[in-house]
Amino acid sequence: MDTHRIKEAVHWRRLIDTLLDSAQYADLVLQGGYVINVITREIYEADVAIKGEKILLLGDASELMGPSTHVENVAGKFIAPGFIDSHMHFESAMLTVTEFSRLSIPTGTTTLVADPHEIGNVLGVMGMKAMIEEAKTLPHQVRFTVPCRTPDAPGLETAGMDVSSKDMAELLTDSWVQGIGEIQGFSNVHPVYKYASHILDDQIASVAYTHSLGKTVEGNAPALFGKELAAHIISGGTHISCHETTTKEEMVEKLRYGVTVFMREGSSQRNMAECIRAITEEGMDSRRAVLVSDDMVPEDLLNDGHMNDIVRRTIACGVDPVEAIQMVTINPATHFGFRDVGVLAPGKRADIAVLSDLEQMTVDSVYLNGRKAAEKGNLTIELPAYTYPETVKGSVKREKVKASDLHISAVDRSKARVRAIEVIPDQNLTGAQEFELNVQEGVIQPCLQRDVLPLLVLERHGRGGGIGKTFVTGMTLQRGAIAESVAHDTHNLIVTGTNYEDMAMAVNRVIAMGGGIAMIADGKVVGDLPLPVGGLMTDLLSGKELADTVSNLHRLAKEELGCQLHVPFMHLSFLSLVTSPKWKITDIGLIEVDEFKVLPTVIQEGR
Amino acid sequence: MDTHRIKEAVHWRRLIDTLLDSAQYADLVLQGGYVINVITREIYEADVAIKGEKILLLGDASELMGPSTHVENVAGKFIAPGFIDSHMHFESAMLTVTEFSRLSIPTGTTTLVADPHEIGNVLGVMGMKAMIEEAKTLPHQVRFTVPCRTPDAPGLETAGMDVSSKDMAELLTDSWVQGIGEIQGFSNVHPVYKYASHILDDQIASVAYTHSLGKTVEGNAPALFGKELAAHIISGGTHISCHETTTKEEMVEKLRYGVTVFMREGSSQRNMAECIRAITEEGMDSRRAVLVSDDMVPEDLLNDGHMNDIVRRTIACGVDPVEAIQMVTINPATHFGFRDVGVLAPGKRADIAVLSDLEQMTVDSVYLNGRKAAEKGNLTIELPAYTYPETVKGSVKREKVKASDLHISAVDRSKARVRAIEVIPDQNLTGAQEFELNVQEGVIQPCLQRDVLPLLVLERHGRGGGIGKTFVTGMTLQRGAIAESVAHDTHNLIVTGTNYEDMAMAVNRVIAMGGGIAMIADGKVVGDLPLPVGGLMTDLLSGKELADTVSNLHRLAKEELGCQLHVPFMHLSFLSLVTSPKWKITDIGLIEVDEFKVLPTVIQEGR
Repeated sequence: MDTHRIKEAVHWRRLIDTLLDSAQYADLVLQGGYVINVITREIYEADVAIKGEKILLLGDASELMGPSTHVENVAGKFIAPGFIDSHMHFESAMLTVTEFSRLSIPTGTTTLVADPHEIGNVLGVMGMKAMIEEAKTLPHQVRFTVPCRTPDAPGLETAGMDVSSKDMAELLTDSWVQGIGEIQGFSNVHPVYKYASHILDDQIASVAYTHSLGKTVEGNAPALFGKELAAHIISGGTHISCHETTTKEEMVEKLRYGVTVFMREGSSQRNMAECIRAITEEGMDSRRAVLVSDDMVPEDLLNDGHMNDIVRRTIACGVDPVEAIQMVTINPATHFGFRDVGVLAPGKRADIAVLSDLEQMTVDSVYLNGRKAAEKGNLTIELPAYTYPETVKGSVKREKVKASDLHISAVDRSKARVRAIEVIPDQNLTGAQEFELNVQEGVIQPCLQRDVLPLLVLERHGRGGGIGKTFVTGMTLQRGAIAESVAHDTHNLIVTGTNYEDMAMAVNRVIAMGGGIAMIADGKVVGDLPLPVGGLMTDLLSGKELADTVSNLHRLAKEELGCQLHVPFMHLSFLSLVTSPKWKITDIGLIEVDEFKVLPTVIQEGR
Repeated sequence: MDTHRIKEAVHWRRLIDTLLDSAQYADLVLQGGYVINVITREIYEADVAIKGEKILLLGDASELMGPSTHVENVAGKFIAPGFIDSHMHFESAMLTVTEFSRLSIPTGTTTLVADPHEIGNVLGVMGMKAMIEEAKTLPHQVRFTVPCRTPDAPGLETAGMDVSSKDMAELLTDSWVQGIGEIQGFSNVHPVYKYASHILDDQIASVAYTHSLGKTVEGNAPALFGKELAAHIISGGTHISCHETTTKEEMVEKLRYGVTVFMREGSSQRNMAECIRAITEEGMDSRRAVLVSDDMVPEDLLNDGHMNDIVRRTIACGVDPVEAIQMVTINPATHFGFRDVGVLAPGKRADIAVLSDLEQMTVDSVYLNGRKAAEKGNLTIELPAYTYPETVKGSVKREKVKASDLHISAVDRSKARVRAIEVIPDQNLTGAQEFELNVQEGVIQPCLQRDVLPLLVLERHGRGGGIGKTFVTGMTLQRGAIAESVAHDTHNLIVTGTNYEDMAMAVNRVIAMGGGIAMIADGKVVGDLPLPVGGLMTDLLSGKELADTVSNLHRLAKEELGCQLHVPFMHLSFLSLVTSPKWKITDIGLIEVDEFKVLPTVIQEGR
């Protein structure tokens, strides 16, 4: 039996002594508030008595109050369990675990379930372990759901490291690892089954092993119904989630099929308002409905909040506030089998969000392990400083490029018919379009009038240096170029722009920084952001500083490059995600996701 | 990884092949019925497609039907997940696992969570293992929650074997063992804390070890509120059930405190109608409300059914039928962490109850692992014959008694003031009364007019042979005596009667049978039943034969002995259960449960 279990047993005895021995007292009593009971879906007046890290009692705590008890008056306020974000990526915020938490804890989030597959794609098990080690230094609950495969689509993209079932044993034995994360390798059920069934077999082996350890598996089933949805669920061992649900019809079908639907409501993809209709319009039992952020940018965390903001928006869609709070507390805790958090009850962790306004989800103070950790939006505890090892730095391994390396060519014609990925605002899914573009000296030209720009991915892990080339419509750039080393999920170097010269300069700027984001216009650097950790995250800036920087970059993208998208870098980075339809770009080329194959960008006439 | 996991993985792949390969087909399709979806709380028309032991799909199964598919027309019928009885004792029915299941499977029960603490008290780990081995021969899911201690109240009663934390490792590694069963050793929180805190410490050690294996712990918290309830919950590791909840107020408090309330509705104790008011009157979320039988007599199983009957009664109390069915399917599955049963969804076990009438819960047919197991109340599969080892027989180890051994004496008086346990019909709880009785030649006499009879427990495990003596009121006997080797929880020999001679003869009859039940009137055997397995169960009779025998005994108890109780043998057997208040009788004497002490039966005047 590990130390943790023994400590817990000692803690139980200490709590029982406090409850039954009249000479012992609670350490802390939150007095006069209204408890939000997410088990019974009730709100009622009750004190909350705490001893050490745990809750003693809800109700009349007068007999537990003595000279050593600190009493906190929370009259008129609402006492909720701390919130759980059940699916999120630190890499999306470009923040370390510590700096993300510095922003999220004051919003009431006390448990994060993170999927480190971005750093896993770049740096493999070593990169994920560095992140897990960081989490172990922190006072709140951070758990990891790790990828059972990188890359998701071998043969169609090149990752920095290949992770497969053989790596599972090493990762899953860590008690901070909750299980396997989104099994997007089998999101596109038919193509993978038909063309790459070894991916399926390897995944099933990993899932069976994970179950043998009593751990969990998360799904990823965009736009799947019926037989395909059933096959995906079974491939994940039948108890899975899906955070890629975008329509009411999908929500209805997935809930009926037993999937825990992680309704995503982050910075770039907002699916809650559509999904929630299964609850508000059809009256379905919401026990398997959960709210998650998936991807958050730091400025949204700072300005709007985290899970509290997502709950607020859910309430605004007509959901009862307590039912909405269940979706970030007991529902996810039940899904993961967390028995220590997600409810306020005797013996549970005293992770608590005190709210001054229920409808607005205004977080007044936050308790972690029975200790006040935040008040009025500010952290009131110190978080330890964690230094990432040098092994996670310097991950961009490629030589500089010339503009001509990026050219998309068409031989012997003045016009070329090309395929272009269509950006769908606030979605990972893309459309597919075709355009006729001008050709000058054998090079196909961007068309600003119709918003058709070159879109390239350059392998950057020192594994061949291939370049995939296509076009994109919907990025809305009027000038210059954007490049970044964040490009889901293999995180090669992605670039788009209005001209090849600025694009080459943007790529070279990212290479020179050792990873990051660069915006170039007319041969000048408009703005940039170094991301030293795996080319994905910064360990140089606090969340606030990063938010300011990214906010400034967003402003510059709009003002200097004319980009109209809400979060252009995040959008760009998802254009290489080959696990969600319809077309995506990787270092191998333009990918027809549903066919699991490479498509030519330039359409050969007459064929 | 064990064989079970590997087989499961192979099964997953086979299901996926059936779903995605157009040349493969379902084995069985239930066509045209209404699915009861306990996840979403809906009823809708959908086919259920099955392959091997598992569910493929719910919905349109037309593409999965081929020449090898058997189609079952269930038009107009309701398709529910098989029912779970989350807390039951085979010993209470006096039936082997096999014979209990022969009666319960046709009623739609496909999962039993059994607590073998009766046989555990008599025969220790060896006895429990014999029962578990029997369960392993059967086709349905039977799991065991084992006692972390026998006897529950050391010093106040004598069991056949002492089980404690040191025995946990051997029991809990068996994959048929779900965890620790009802922790009634700490039901009486204050007395145990004050007088026997070593019981608490030993229990906590067992609970921590159980958690380290990812297994569960069940509670037992009769009439506990506030601090005492919190202490009990924490002593069980915070995630527990309680099947001893008898009032609405208890139900409200326990649900609020995070307890999964197992609303008991068996043959002798019926608590559902009171508990359910927390749901029907207060509108509390019912996700942690579960229905259990605890103790069933075979004639009730035969005549009324099992969980289907309990659900029927719950519906009659005003609960929506699907919500009531949730209480025997998804709710208990979630409590225990069963991920394979309790819902109908892709990849789950095809354990199904087909109902022809929803309000009446009429079970038309039952499927186990995708195979029809019962139809119109009759089993359609063979159950294997299991032979209990000789080591579980011959458990009654005591010499015959004389009437004078049983006398309750009062010296030098013509009247004696005595304490008497008061039977409360259909409850384990008892009352406490005092009476003045006549004394003849130093022996206190029963009083039939006021229904006050001697009640004795005789140690029968060969561990000293002590006899505890008191009186009882409410047994309603007018003639003769009843003795039995079933007497919770240590299962010594319990006897009551209208005269000491018949009582001695009844005791001797039970001894001669090697355990069982005997009724004597006027020196003649009115009826008897041998129970060779641990003195608790029969391996000689089928469920039907036993039901007939017990039914006949009940008739004889009424007609020949004048007893008015519904299930007199079960009532008698609970009068020695020292974990539920107020007074009980053991081989040590009359027990004041709340004080954890022995009380004199004869009240000494002036003291």
